[in-house]
Amino acid sequence: MPFYTCYTSEDALSADQRAHIAEAITRIHVGHTGAPRGFVRVLFQESAKGDCYTAGEVADFGMIRGVIRAGRSAQTKEALLRDLWELLQTVTGLGDHELLVSVQENPASNAMEGGEVLPEPGQEAQWMARH
Amino acid sequence: MPFYTCYTSEDALSADQRAHIAEAITRIHVGHTGAPRGFVRVLFQESAKGDCYTAGEVADFGMIRGVIRAGRSAQTKEALLRDLWELLQTVTGLGDHELLVSVQENPASNAMEGGEVLPEPGQEAQWMARH
Amino acid sequence: MPFYTCYTSEDALSADQRAHIAEAITRIHVGHTGAPRGFVRVLFQESAKGDCYTAGEVADFGMIRGVIRAGRSAQTKEALLRDLWELLQTVTGLGDHELLVSVQENPASNAMEGGEVLPEPGQEAQWMARH
Repeated sequence: MPFYTCYTSEDALSADQRAHIAEAITRIHVGHTGAPRGFVRVLFQESAKGDCYTAGEVADFGMIRGVIRAGRSAQTKEALLRDLWELLQTVTGLGDHELLVSVQENPASNAMEGGEVLPEPGQEAQWMARH
Repeated sequence: MPFYTCYTSEDALSADQRAHIAEAITRIHVGHTGAPRGFVRVLFQESAKGDCYTAGEVADFGMIRGVIRAGRSAQTKEALLRDLWELLQTVTGLGDHELLVSVQENPASNAMEGGEVLPEPGQEAQWMARH
Repeated sequence: MPFYTCYTSEDALSADQRAHIAEAITRIHVGHTGAPRGFVRVLFQESAKGDCYTAGEVADFGMIRGVIRAGRSAQTKEALLRDLWELLQTVTGLGDHELLVSVQENPASNAMEGGEVLPEPGQEAQWMARH
């Protein structure tokens, strides 16, 4: 963690756009939270045309959903959401009603990286020193 | 949000059945929560035969998982689960042991729509007025 | 619930390896929590090469993410994570930096199986007797 999934319609993103989004999400997350870059994962998941409905009608959409460690301030989370929103909108060109950006918070103790339960936000230094 | 994902085996649902499910989930969610229709998204995700196991054995399955804003009452959530269950069972014809319906609650402040952090349940009117 | 999703690159797992993982996850979950086997579901989800980035670079990865009923002790969850980690690493041969294992906790009242809202952990006997 953090583990970000970027959902779009198939063929919505070129390989270059994916690489740009992956790097930007990593930079945005690290910038706002101070988490180590090596923790940040981004998975791209495509849907076929017609797989997504909004308000009961088939609709194009783009979504970033991140599962992040719990414990970030409301200000940090809003800044994170805002930058992710702008990123996704800029790259996809989708309208305000076609985008969704969210984070789900999960306690650090509910995830394992490198064979060890994750440190709480702010306790990374000791944890990293052990790896 | 709400963002519902409907998981089934590939080819389990026709295009008409998908449209019916998408409309029904939208109506069920709005009916029980009063949320604006435009917030309700439904994504269909198919698995290949053999991708899902129950109790360690390959098994057919159908699942609806919704990520909804936190703050609904237990009664509202149970009514929601009950209607989603009946919908999924009626359309797929799957048995009681082949279905799973759940919601994950996420604070409104953890999601952004229309470029703005979501309002708490019940505070939609002001929020919508700004859009 | 529990609902485990095992994410890997396409073709990373043979059919035999999947069956082994599904059985092992079921055994691990039941062993640590006492939950009924029939509740344990495992879905395999593959990504194309290049769909996953770590630290902004394309990277191989394997992940198990379980959505489990809330209310397990920290000790139970850590034991669960540890066994899932060892399982995934043994089967995939991936390195410590290519793996992620986590659980998301969801209150029993947010999920329905068998047409009924799930029992709290420890209250399964009465619930099962009704089915």
